[in-house]
Amino acid sequence: MTTGAQALLRTLLAGGVDVCFANPGTSEMHAVAALDTEPGMRAVLTLFEGVATGAADGFARMADRPAATLLHLGPGLGNGLANLHNARRAGTGIVNVVGDHALTHAKYDAPLQSDIAGMAATVSGWVHLTRGPAQVAADTAAAVAAARAGQVATLILPADASWSEGAADEPAPVPPVPERGTGNPESLAAAAAALRTGEPCLLLLGGDATREAGLAAAGRIAAATGARIMVETFPTRLQRGAGRVPAERLAYLPDRAAQQLAGTRHLLLAGARSPVAFFGHPGKRGDLVPEGCHVYEIAGREDAAALTLAELADQVAGDATAHLAPARRPELPTGPLRADVVAAVVGALLPENAVVVDEANTSSVGLPAATTGAPPHDWLCLTGGAIGWGLPTATGAALACPDRPVWNLQADGSALYTITALWTQAREGLDVTTVVYNNAAYAILRLELAAVGAAGGPNARSLLDLDRPRPDFVSLATGMGVPASRAETAEELATALSRATAEPGPHLIEAIVPPVVP
Amino acid sequence: MTTGAQALLRTLLAGGVDVCFANPGTSEMHAVAALDTEPGMRAVLTLFEGVATGAADGFARMADRPAATLLHLGPGLGNGLANLHNARRAGTGIVNVVGDHALTHAKYDAPLQSDIAGMAATVSGWVHLTRGPAQVAADTAAAVAAARAGQVATLILPADASWSEGAADEPAPVPPVPERGTGNPESLAAAAAALRTGEPCLLLLGGDATREAGLAAAGRIAAATGARIMVETFPTRLQRGAGRVPAERLAYLPDRAAQQLAGTRHLLLAGARSPVAFFGHPGKRGDLVPEGCHVYEIAGREDAAALTLAELADQVAGDATAHLAPARRPELPTGPLRADVVAAVVGALLPENAVVVDEANTSSVGLPAATTGAPPHDWLCLTGGAIGWGLPTATGAALACPDRPVWNLQADGSALYTITALWTQAREGLDVTTVVYNNAAYAILRLELAAVGAAGGPNARSLLDLDRPRPDFVSLATGMGVPASRAETAEELATALSRATAEPGPHLIEAIVPPVVP
Repeated sequence: MTTGAQALLRTLLAGGVDVCFANPGTSEMHAVAALDTEPGMRAVLTLFEGVATGAADGFARMADRPAATLLHLGPGLGNGLANLHNARRAGTGIVNVVGDHALTHAKYDAPLQSDIAGMAATVSGWVHLTRGPAQVAADTAAAVAAARAGQVATLILPADASWSEGAADEPAPVPPVPERGTGNPESLAAAAAALRTGEPCLLLLGGDATREAGLAAAGRIAAATGARIMVETFPTRLQRGAGRVPAERLAYLPDRAAQQLAGTRHLLLAGARSPVAFFGHPGKRGDLVPEGCHVYEIAGREDAAALTLAELADQVAGDATAHLAPARRPELPTGPLRADVVAAVVGALLPENAVVVDEANTSSVGLPAATTGAPPHDWLCLTGGAIGWGLPTATGAALACPDRPVWNLQADGSALYTITALWTQAREGLDVTTVVYNNAAYAILRLELAAVGAAGGPNARSLLDLDRPRPDFVSLATGMGVPASRAETAEELATALSRATAEPGPHLIEAIVPPVVP
Repeated sequence: MTTGAQALLRTLLAGGVDVCFANPGTSEMHAVAALDTEPGMRAVLTLFEGVATGAADGFARMADRPAATLLHLGPGLGNGLANLHNARRAGTGIVNVVGDHALTHAKYDAPLQSDIAGMAATVSGWVHLTRGPAQVAADTAAAVAAARAGQVATLILPADASWSEGAADEPAPVPPVPERGTGNPESLAAAAAALRTGEPCLLLLGGDATREAGLAAAGRIAAATGARIMVETFPTRLQRGAGRVPAERLAYLPDRAAQQLAGTRHLLLAGARSPVAFFGHPGKRGDLVPEGCHVYEIAGREDAAALTLAELADQVAGDATAHLAPARRPELPTGPLRADVVAAVVGALLPENAVVVDEANTSSVGLPAATTGAPPHDWLCLTGGAIGWGLPTATGAALACPDRPVWNLQADGSALYTITALWTQAREGLDVTTVVYNNAAYAILRLELAAVGAAGGPNARSLLDLDRPRPDFVSLATGMGVPASRAETAEELATALSRATAEPGPHLIEAIVPPVVP
């Protein structure tokens, strides 16, 4: 007497997946109904699928276990694709459940029918259409395993597989996930030899090497060998702050990144990919590895990069002690806000054990330096470049870490993609403080227009401006049920941040700043 | 010295495509820059790709010629997919331009790279990756031809094909689009024979048969033969009002649709597909054609359905005169708003020559009856069922018809998907009046939860509610720069609608109503 919908939820719960970010429709109604027979699942309603998928990304980055989504057919999946793309690039596991028409209904090509599997394949490491209630539990367990391995696992669940009885009463066991490897000994030996040359070496960290343990190992290596440490441009989750090994991030703009990498003779990749330009630019190299530099992949994206670094440290670092960031905060600044002034205020006030969700884009100038010595915190980045990620991810991170303050440092244009995440934050009472940098422009595109060598006349410029009218984020947040205020000076921002930190629940602060690129 | 970007714009303009709904990114910067050398193109900035694609749909429905989009890579296309799905189901032509990484950059698998062609194939009738500047003009012309034929035509434009010189100076000619056929004579003869039997016949109209000419022909046939006329559930563009042939629409809920179709012996399809349930429901038929009913496809979705109906009318209707809807409006009601009260106010006040964009969903109860005798107007429907369509489509319809008032009757949950369309309406000064039915619920899902036979406990119900907190659309519209007001009574709604109609530019009215399904 168990329906496929019940088997889905039971297997998810048995597999440790107990949060589901949902935008259901008719074809998902039995999965929704099963929430009352399987009450262990926490279903979180979002008002747009991109919020659901981004929240699932943020949840998994902070909880180190997957959440599920519940999306409605092809169009619902389509709305969620951008943040699934970011999750794919982050290596975040998500059990992405997409309802479909009943299998018996597929032959009618009803208006909402489309090629879900084809769409899902563009963002998923695992895609499967479940064929009936008897298959749901095993298929769900396989999806959980794929998600635990860091993949977006899309389970397409036809409505009749969901509503029909005939599923097993017991959840299916989740297949074991292979342990992550520690790279191969030969490349480790080659890397160790390179580190002993005394020539300029650089450790580029990504994957799980940007957590505390990986950084600690890299710090020992650096202390012993003089190698530099750098983190990939947009790490999935970077643990930093006072008492941790500080690491510069590779710049987004290729010219600046090339400067950072210049002179490197040996580039050691630990969980990071070999550096390439984010975009191609006319007449410029896409590969950022300096000419003549040797590249060593000591651990790939899928490997246990932190563990590999620890092995390497044991080989080359002896009992060297890593340099740690001292506790140090900027003074609280005064006067009109600019992006760098916001950074100083954030650095001065960031609470202990915060989670920072950074979609500040061009406005992030000054943030890393201002927060290196702040109390220890996690920093989440826009791994895949698909904007509209910050508010949803902050939502999911807050659900994963109810006892930690979440600060979402957020560009205005990107915020507008998924602004309804604020409503979910209000409904769930999440402790998220969103600081929107309102510069009334797609400032990053002004930068890029120049960088690609395109001349910008008035028609072009008007496509990069967000004025006429300037969005009013205080009104928008109020409309979503989130208390909001506007700050035009450092003092006002500091007051608003202190109040937001003191009060439970979500807050939004609109920081009026000039664009970094005028 | 012509770049691919210039060739793109020149060929679009030569092909009559002179409006582009844009969400550009770095890979599209040269196309943006070319807006200043090819100033004939009107580029309209949207803050989210789903607004761009929905606006292109609305534009083409009203202008009867395609607009272009300009989207940023796979994630940008992903955000636009839902409304491209609606366009595909509407038979709307769109030149869907998606920028991609430079071809020379593809080998690096940079963070924003993904399978654009695979994603595009799920919604497009035509997909092509252009290979270089010399190919851009011809590829663009082919895309325009496909769009003129009613397809979503996705042109993938790598950044280097856009920025490089070597394109032809002259635009490429658009290949001729085959004339739409008028169905085959045999099925027309069979249909004529059926109409002459005197048995119950029903003409189901879709495609271009829901415009004035098609309805007029159907009206003659009905007058001569006693056949009933019905329009498919969600027509692309229905021309109706006083002095036009009135036609009932096939109901959304299958039980109600089955009642409408009961007793029909001969079902004649003119531009409409054979009726099927929108969703499968447990234990119910998906095919809505009554047992024993003969089906005649006199014109397919792709055919000239109106012309075919005119031929059929010439065969069977002689000089019969169609029944036309008399000019008749409801009295202005008074008292608290409900969905049916809103309908009466709309019927009483709908301006001459209005365009109605209907995404009212459950709240649309009473609207058709209340407006049958209103001044002639066009009625646009959610063809593909992917919500978040109304505000974007109203935006595009207003750009296509600057001299006509556009009324967007809009469900709350769906409005929140693409709420930033209001900003584009404000920027462009579009004469759109949005009436949001705020019932604080996904009321349609309450209906569907019951219809699929699923029991709804408190956990399920909470996923169908939009209260806690109730979105405040006046604040949201204000935040987007659109003047807004709230109406709780018929009198307040009438006052607000009259003011919105009298003033130029966009307005939003939040109509507080109880859900149709409590």
